Amino acid sequence: MIVIMKRGTPQKEIDKLSEALTAKGVEVNPVVGKDLTILGLVGDTSKIDDSWIEANRNVVRVMHVAEPFKKANKMFHPEPSTIRVGGQEIGMNSRLALIAGPCSVESEEQICGIAAEVKAAGANFLRGGAFKPRTSPYAFQGLKYDGLELLMEAREKTGLPIVTEIMAPHDIEIFEREVDVIQVGARNMQNFDLLRELGKTRKTILLKRGLSATIEEWLMSAEYIMAGGNENIVLCERGIRTFEQYTRNTLDLSAIPAIRKLSHLPVVVDPSHATGKWWMVDPLAKAAVAVGADGLIVEVHNDPANALCDGQQSIKPSVYRQLIDDIRPIAAAVGREM
Amino acid sequence: MIVIMKRGTPQKEIDKLSEALTAKGVEVNPVVGKDLTILGLVGDTSKIDDSWIEANRNVVRVMHVAEPFKKANKMFHPEPSTIRVGGQEIGMNSRLALIAGPCSVESEEQICGIAAEVKAAGANFLRGGAFKPRTSPYAFQGLKYDGLELLMEAREKTGLPIVTEIMAPHDIEIFEREVDVIQVGARNMQNFDLLRELGKTRKTILLKRGLSATIEEWLMSAEYIMAGGNENIVLCERGIRTFEQYTRNTLDLSAIPAIRKLSHLPVVVDPSHATGKWWMVDPLAKAAVAVGADGLIVEVHNDPANALCDGQQSIKPSVYRQLIDDIRPIAAAVGREM
Amino acid sequence: MIVIMKRGTPQKEIDKLSEALTAKGVEVNPVVGKDLTILGLVGDTSKIDDSWIEANRNVVRVMHVAEPFKKANKMFHPEPSTIRVGGQEIGMNSRLALIAGPCSVESEEQICGIAAEVKAAGANFLRGGAFKPRTSPYAFQGLKYDGLELLMEAREKTGLPIVTEIMAPHDIEIFEREVDVIQVGARNMQNFDLLRELGKTRKTILLKRGLSATIEEWLMSAEYIMAGGNENIVLCERGIRTFEQYTRNTLDLSAIPAIRKLSHLPVVVDPSHATGKWWMVDPLAKAAVAVGADGLIVEVHNDPANALCDGQQSIKPSVYRQLIDDIRPIAAAVGREM
Amino acid sequence: MIVIMKRGTPQKEIDKLSEALTAKGVEVNPVVGKDLTILGLVGDTSKIDDSWIEANRNVVRVMHVAEPFKKANKMFHPEPSTIRVGGQEIGMNSRLALIAGPCSVESEEQICGIAAEVKAAGANFLRGGAFKPRTSPYAFQGLKYDGLELLMEAREKTGLPIVTEIMAPHDIEIFEREVDVIQVGARNMQNFDLLRELGKTRKTILLKRGLSATIEEWLMSAEYIMAGGNENIVLCERGIRTFEQYTRNTLDLSAIPAIRKLSHLPVVVDPSHATGKWWMVDPLAKAAVAVGADGLIVEVHNDPANALCDGQQSIKPSVYRQLIDDIRPIAAAVGREM
Repeated sequence: MIVIMKRGTPQKEIDKLSEALTAKGVEVNPVVGKDLTILGLVGDTSKIDDSWIEANRNVVRVMHVAEPFKKANKMFHPEPSTIRVGGQEIGMNSRLALIAGPCSVESEEQICGIAAEVKAAGANFLRGGAFKPRTSPYAFQGLKYDGLELLMEAREKTGLPIVTEIMAPHDIEIFEREVDVIQVGARNMQNFDLLRELGKTRKTILLKRGLSATIEEWLMSAEYIMAGGNENIVLCERGIRTFEQYTRNTLDLSAIPAIRKLSHLPVVVDPSHATGKWWMVDPLAKAAVAVGADGLIVEVHNDPANALCDGQQSIKPSVYRQLIDDIRPIAAAVGREM
Repeated sequence: MIVIMKRGTPQKEIDKLSEALTAKGVEVNPVVGKDLTILGLVGDTSKIDDSWIEANRNVVRVMHVAEPFKKANKMFHPEPSTIRVGGQEIGMNSRLALIAGPCSVESEEQICGIAAEVKAAGANFLRGGAFKPRTSPYAFQGLKYDGLELLMEAREKTGLPIVTEIMAPHDIEIFEREVDVIQVGARNMQNFDLLRELGKTRKTILLKRGLSATIEEWLMSAEYIMAGGNENIVLCERGIRTFEQYTRNTLDLSAIPAIRKLSHLPVVVDPSHATGKWWMVDPLAKAAVAVGADGLIVEVHNDPANALCDGQQSIKPSVYRQLIDDIRPIAAAVGREM
Repeated sequence: MIVIMKRGTPQKEIDKLSEALTAKGVEVNPVVGKDLTILGLVGDTSKIDDSWIEANRNVVRVMHVAEPFKKANKMFHPEPSTIRVGGQEIGMNSRLALIAGPCSVESEEQICGIAAEVKAAGANFLRGGAFKPRTSPYAFQGLKYDGLELLMEAREKTGLPIVTEIMAPHDIEIFEREVDVIQVGARNMQNFDLLRELGKTRKTILLKRGLSATIEEWLMSAEYIMAGGNENIVLCERGIRTFEQYTRNTLDLSAIPAIRKLSHLPVVVDPSHATGKWWMVDPLAKAAVAVGADGLIVEVHNDPANALCDGQQSIKPSVYRQLIDDIRPIAAAVGREM
Repeated sequence: MIVIMKRGTPQKEIDKLSEALTAKGVEVNPVVGKDLTILGLVGDTSKIDDSWIEANRNVVRVMHVAEPFKKANKMFHPEPSTIRVGGQEIGMNSRLALIAGPCSVESEEQICGIAAEVKAAGANFLRGGAFKPRTSPYAFQGLKYDGLELLMEAREKTGLPIVTEIMAPHDIEIFEREVDVIQVGARNMQNFDLLRELGKTRKTILLKRGLSATIEEWLMSAEYIMAGGNENIVLCERGIRTFEQYTRNTLDLSAIPAIRKLSHLPVVVDPSHATGKWWMVDPLAKAAVAVGADGLIVEVHNDPANALCDGQQSIKPSVYRQLIDDIRPIAAAVGREM
């Protein structure tokens, strides 16, 4: 941590702050220039709240030199993590996680049909929404617990582990019992209460990046879960909010190498939600594999034009099958198995 | 609702879609040009999910002409709403809501002391965080239920109604019983489960704008609460996330006249969180009153340099008193009482 | 300047870099911690390109502690600058600069009529576009040199100094001779060639903030002009590009206190372009004065519905007159003369 | 074009506007609902400025249904364009354009050495900056005309056509004579004067996307050049400005399929400037090819740690060679030759 002092701060004020900092257990190294005095703090600065230092009227700015996340940090865990769930593995040293399925679970026929088709195409996880976060209170909110039942049925029929979104802490018990991978949606990425509760489980969490979350904040949300003892986390890039309105969000593929550099956690990409356009799924899924993602989560619907939600971003099972085939040589080119 | 068809769509495809739309109870008016066919939908389009139409492969785009919010919409409720709570009123026809207090409740002495001082300065609400949403799991998370007790004590001593943030649905019962104004923080603006639960109460909700929420999404979150029957909502602009990093967020004061145009709900401004800098609170609070806000929520701390959180954005009680005095002529200039 | 070294960098690599830096004339102060080594650079770091240091593979990051601008920096010029032009003054110690006029100059009758009306309302500068930067090559591009002539005529009739936008370096000669205040538009804020040429003149430059320019980049563009010897610069905040689409841009009023803190240059606000909506001009102009701006630049058109450009953001002369009257008590409240 | 009228607009006002629109040569089709009246405009709406309609106080909003660009529009030119320059071709039906070279031309030895190396690696164009747009007036601004000479020498030695940035209209003559591909930098994407002048030449223009330019604005800038008669344009995605600060910009790879859908112009990707980090060039270059880009522009420097600019985003020639080799199977997978 580095503290920049205001020009002309009297020496006794600098001494006073230095003493206060030393009292908090860090070593203070002053760097004194003509125009500026800098205090370099060495030691365990994790317990020092920078807003506390910045509130000192002689301080211009506080700069971090170390990342604020620990358990998620590659520095302290250099080997990439492998997450094992439902007989599958997710991580840099595993084959690509191919998660596919409809936006919403609509009926037994629909979910079981799609599950069989995506499995045949090569998918190793089934996704499907039972509880849907919708911007409007008047839009279809999902089949809820009935949807969960249908997902379980599809799992039984196909053997695919299921991935589905949780929206409230009071559902953790049932999700813990019945779901393989619990998805935390973008809008809940900083629902700290939910994160904390999920930290108490040992379930695999698919943590979507928030619409306007920095990479650091995203990793801090993973840290919330990990701080509770649950280290089974898969990150999911799904597009960020920018000024560009042609696509629903802007898929940030540079986040994949960034996460690789900063963390040991696996990271997958959701090209469907990122763009909101079905015809962009194919090129962006290919790009996601080329950039080094550990998997793809893709919306597949047997009848997109009549889907109960997000039909415009869903592809048909036949298109998905073709996509998976087309991705094989790209995966091979970047050294990944499928 | 307007549906733009792809160039060269066969007439029978247009007819098929028109029929499907008519079956949903809307009237379809085609506008046929050389290069484009447009379908103008008239009637109650609120039950038609636009993603369903966009999934039709002959559709280029769906455009909304009416706002998707109803109960929050000024069109159906032209008179500005007045919220009555704790003996106070908030709204265009009431005096300014002056909400002030520390970021976190720290001790009885602290909260009661600050409460007395801000009341003397002119504040009519006391704010203070008991449950704190912090980016890091290792940062101070608030005194929680003990903090609530201290707030209640400060209310008893000063008579000021209390405003404090809720973080989880399971706390609604105690908040409903003990708190005057329940704050929903920016990070929870789209925690739909929480919103729905708050819709079942009749408490006043201070709904902060999400970091990357559009004005329309913000009003849709108000609509979530209102759809449940609770119309006691006060909106709070607190800065949005942009590329500019000099301030913590970018305070969007144009949101105030926008809300005035679109909705009947009161709207207040939080200059402290918006900028993260105590010396910006004064000019931006003045600007907020000049632009027409119905109130201000300001962080005031007796000892900012030793605050347990956000000290760098807090002002001292004496500075707050001066600010309130300086604001009087501005409020008068825009026709507001204080 | 602070250089953060990679964990585990061998001492001899640190020494090598320190020597290279010392050779560039700065003093290197190492701060050595268990996990991190930091080099604090003291002295004139302005000639050291940080990208040169960051290219060193042992360097994690380079952090600036001093602002990169000098002539525009308040640190080296604590007194606020006053710009004198056309018999008027602009700056913190002068009365508000009230710049008004149409988006485009359309005819003699139009510009002279509006000039007389805004003068009567209290304006002390006339604005009007002769050369128009339009997103489409097919849109009206302005009356060009004929427009300049008409502006000069309006100046002669009313005595108001004229403010108009330059679009190309080859027009500097005529602008230098005929125009009082040369406006650099948002899209040209980093047209470095144009800035450099303007630095060779001694004309007053109204430098608009770029659509996605940080406050620091904006001041660096001022620095470009000042580096050439021309210190007559007035900054103009006109909204930045964000995800919010309800307004054309998001007016960043926090930029005003920020500029006050960082620079001695005057800063004015353009509420018309910021929002693109005429009915937002009134509240945001008031907010701009309350926040401490040194002036306002407002689009006024005698017949907005038939304006050749940007009619939707123009107000009528009678509305402008009312606005100026309404602003008086706000200006007085923040200690400004009008 | 669609015009949304305000609720309750009197019929005679609607008629008046309809007549005015009809007088401009478009057919007006009203769609009348209970709460809303919409006017659908059919015909050549390109001459109607929407700000003119929006200025009508009875109009809520104007919506475009057709893209405002024509010559760049795929609708009117369905076949992908192939640009022929310096014995090379760029476009969907050609092999990948591999443009490589240093940020700045520094010396004969440097530029000729790098040119030979990137050619050996597989590059078919040489890039290098002679005129450098730098944020600071005190930073190295390029060797200017001497730099151009050195580029020409490198071309003579290697046969590689040269790509270099123009910064001012007065240099067009020399660029037209000596340069193969004239680059327009991100900061000049809306320097309309420069675009117009380039439209008068027949040189190939590499048009970089502005930092905060929408895809539509980017295509409108291409339209500016094309409107002058020069259709030899290659678009270049190089990252946009967002709230994320870990990378210098956010590379928007979804822009590639978007451009494919909207335009016939070729589009290449610059992973070096997008991220500002050399170690991200490799994964993002692969992703760019996988997503369907027509080429790559990559910064290559023989000695990044001593580069005069942007060393931290440059890779060494040996790394570039490896990258090109690694890209071959990805290119093959998406049906592209190299």
